[in-house]
Amino acid sequence: MLLGQVIGTVVATQKESSLMGLKFLLVRAVDENKEPTGATVVAADVVGCGMGEYVLYATGSSARQTRATDNRPCDATIMAIVDQWEVGGEVRYKK
Amino acid sequence: MLLGQVIGTVVATQKESSLMGLKFLLVRAVDENKEPTGATVVAADVVGCGMGEYVLYATGSSARQTRATDNRPCDATIMAIVDQWEVGGEVRYKK
Amino acid sequence: MLLGQVIGTVVATQKESSLMGLKFLLVRAVDENKEPTGATVVAADVVGCGMGEYVLYATGSSARQTRATDNRPCDATIMAIVDQWEVGGEVRYKK
Amino acid sequence: MLLGQVIGTVVATQKESSLMGLKFLLVRAVDENKEPTGATVVAADVVGCGMGEYVLYATGSSARQTRATDNRPCDATIMAIVDQWEVGGEVRYKK
Amino acid sequence: MLLGQVIGTVVATQKESSLMGLKFLLVRAVDENKEPTGATVVAADVVGCGMGEYVLYATGSSARQTRATDNRPCDATIMAIVDQWEVGGEVRYKK
Repeated sequence: MLLGQVIGTVVATQKESSLMGLKFLLVRAVDENKEPTGATVVAADVVGCGMGEYVLYATGSSARQTRATDNRPCDATIMAIVDQWEVGGEVRYKK
Repeated sequence: MLLGQVIGTVVATQKESSLMGLKFLLVRAVDENKEPTGATVVAADVVGCGMGEYVLYATGSSARQTRATDNRPCDATIMAIVDQWEVGGEVRYKK
Repeated sequence: MLLGQVIGTVVATQKESSLMGLKFLLVRAVDENKEPTGATVVAADVVGCGMGEYVLYATGSSARQTRATDNRPCDATIMAIVDQWEVGGEVRYKK
Repeated sequence: MLLGQVIGTVVATQKESSLMGLKFLLVRAVDENKEPTGATVVAADVVGCGMGEYVLYATGSSARQTRATDNRPCDATIMAIVDQWEVGGEVRYKK
Repeated sequence: MLLGQVIGTVVATQKESSLMGLKFLLVRAVDENKEPTGATVVAADVVGCGMGEYVLYATGSSARQTRATDNRPCDATIMAIVDQWEVGGEVRYKK
């Protein structure tokens, strides 16, 4: 998975029917220092996260390995809300 | 998924038979500020979008998780037409 | 899929048995202006294309969704020969 | 797979239920000279590795081909702890 | 697939049990001019190649489409030893 920060929302009413009911958020990928890596994805949210939160998101076929996204055309899914991460024993992020 | 803008059309008469009947569009990936990220893909259109529209497209095996693209060699599919997106509560794009 | 130009051929006699009978070509990925994007792949050819032609190729598991490449270790397959593409109503390539 | 170095830990209590019981580590991808390539991933650990160790990790659907990660939303899994690697007959890393 | 050159070996005794018996090599991706593209992967060898040889390797789920790697956590597999490749009718590499 990748570290990311939830930065926004996307509204799309005209869409593939199998996407109905899923909530999509704009997620900016970040590195271990919270610096943006340059990628921004639109990810399905299955954990109920809020704006600005740091999350873990999975991409590719792994993004469909949840009850909510099974067999749906999701290639990026937020899987967890991060409480804390450490690098070399030093806390780099704490919620 | 990724944000993209529909920028063109592609015509190809000599092709793999399983691609017959699908419409392919040129989509330029954009970031949350509508700036091109450098990638341009040829995506199947299953939602009927028009030139210049901002869309969400899925890549990889997720691109085949629609009725129209099931078991077809599609690695990029436009899944939704974007109405609006916001970053930090500010509207960055509105159709 | 991605736009590419067929630029060469590859000969390999010692190979995985399931690759037997497939023809592999060197394909240089290009953007909508026919400029190389920096990637060159070795793709299976299932449409019979010639040197210098512009093509569409699929990557990942989608590359195996053809009769010729099913269950074979192909991660890139040329799916179509491009006749023409347009950007913003302007023809950028015509065969 | 890719070479990487385990650089940290991630704690996330609010998460997709199918991730329960898996341990996730921050892994920095490195090249054959141990130089970071720029990518940092959050990978499931199925081999019990320690901080600072050099490892091999798989990405994509291959990350799910272990007993511990089968059918789980893991897109990166540490598969081995590296003892040594050589380039051109010269040892570049030895544990 | 991608063109690559075998540049080294990797030894890892503590590993996921399903990797037992597979040989892993360091492969540096190259372009059509034999110039490194910047990527180095650890690929399973199912064709018995030697140090310095130029090879074709597949990535992603295609890397598992061989008898030796089926259902194993391999995301990169060397599929062929290259005898020769040509660009625009000119030989760029000959074994």
